[in-house]
Amino acid sequence: MKNIRITVEYDGTPYSGWQRQNRKGCVTVQGEIESALGMILQEKISLAAAGRTDKGVHAKAQIANFSTASPMDLSRMVHSLNALLPDTIRITDPLEMPKEFHSRHSARERHYRYFLIAEPSAIYGRFSGCSFGTPDLAVMQQVAGSVRGVHDFSAFSREDRDSPGRLCTVTACQWYRYQHFLVLSISANRFLRSMVRYLVDGMLRAGKGTLSAEEFKRMLETGVMTTQLNPVAPSGLFLWRVTY
Amino acid sequence: MKNIRITVEYDGTPYSGWQRQNRKGCVTVQGEIESALGMILQEKISLAAAGRTDKGVHAKAQIANFSTASPMDLSRMVHSLNALLPDTIRITDPLEMPKEFHSRHSARERHYRYFLIAEPSAIYGRFSGCSFGTPDLAVMQQVAGSVRGVHDFSAFSREDRDSPGRLCTVTACQWYRYQHFLVLSISANRFLRSMVRYLVDGMLRAGKGTLSAEEFKRMLETGVMTTQLNPVAPSGLFLWRVTY
Repeated sequence: MKNIRITVEYDGTPYSGWQRQNRKGCVTVQGEIESALGMILQEKISLAAAGRTDKGVHAKAQIANFSTASPMDLSRMVHSLNALLPDTIRITDPLEMPKEFHSRHSARERHYRYFLIAEPSAIYGRFSGCSFGTPDLAVMQQVAGSVRGVHDFSAFSREDRDSPGRLCTVTACQWYRYQHFLVLSISANRFLRSMVRYLVDGMLRAGKGTLSAEEFKRMLETGVMTTQLNPVAPSGLFLWRVTY
Repeated sequence: MKNIRITVEYDGTPYSGWQRQNRKGCVTVQGEIESALGMILQEKISLAAAGRTDKGVHAKAQIANFSTASPMDLSRMVHSLNALLPDTIRITDPLEMPKEFHSRHSARERHYRYFLIAEPSAIYGRFSGCSFGTPDLAVMQQVAGSVRGVHDFSAFSREDRDSPGRLCTVTACQWYRYQHFLVLSISANRFLRSMVRYLVDGMLRAGKGTLSAEEFKRMLETGVMTTQLNPVAPSGLFLWRVTY
């Protein structure tokens, strides 16, 4: 058996997230790739991935891997795969890996970016969230600084019975301006469910003056969501890169 | 009667172009806006626009105008309009204009941009065309130079019985690099049907060495398509700006 790693870029808009679901009419990125690979390789394929992105979240470079007995040449396989897949999913960089490699367990860090635009836009809206006005970037930057380090991120996530433990080590968290966008770049060893979108909501509220930096920090320290946060739109979020 | 001018941004992907069509199941940008305006103003509204973009072509700032007897406040009207319209169409900058103003006839220049990316991309593909490799930018730039001026663009357009005359005055035509993209910026007093997409196909063929700069120029001079050109994908084209 060969262990094949692939890089997956997707526009998450039309998908119910990464993870295969057995509900009818639920189209997922994993499901689309597994079914296309199954046709090409004439085997049942099961994909592992570095990050299970939520419904509507995009990926610039998701990493996945699978086992196959097929002797098919990798570049030919990827060519067929891209021909079968919808335009909103692209596969690149196939690599044969040692059998120990696992796209999720071997990953050391995940890097996400969140793009915010000040006003609704018919064009930029597909790949950004909207701040409806201009938040104070200096305040957001200050709050972002407090996110770095090891914290229990319970106050900034959905419940998720599948993944135990709530501690994450955030190694980078900062905002920068890019064209019309404010962009959050955040890296951690792991992320809880919807964590980036809850954090962006909290930082945005701080930047707009409706949540104090102190209360944000208190939620980070206590793990209790004392102010109701709502995850910002998935359209602005990208799984940007995975480090092994 | 008031003459109202609006700016329209749209992601053209889901639309059969700007122009209203009476065929069933044909959703157009003009049709969507007219029907939303009709509901808000309780009148039959008819829109004129600076450029009739083709199926799948986007607009950063299309300009349209319409007459109405309604006394409704303009910012309230635009607010209701954006609430009714799909996210892929956004209206901004409503202005009451003198009754002589006509978004098509009064326009002096249209500015289009075409975005090309070297490899297919799940994310960038929605708003770009693909060159499948790296063309020679210097050659494309040289050919672009020959496009400037007054020419009969018959060799670079679809037949169009609605608009007589084939002469256009191109005042700017140049390529530049922008992030992952090669971008064509082109301005003219008018454009024939699909003209930018035929021109990009010709320039791209020149940049890839499958069409000589001489033959491109000959087609510009004679108005005869001696080499078969195919309009590049509409996904890369934006009506960028209109000058009055």
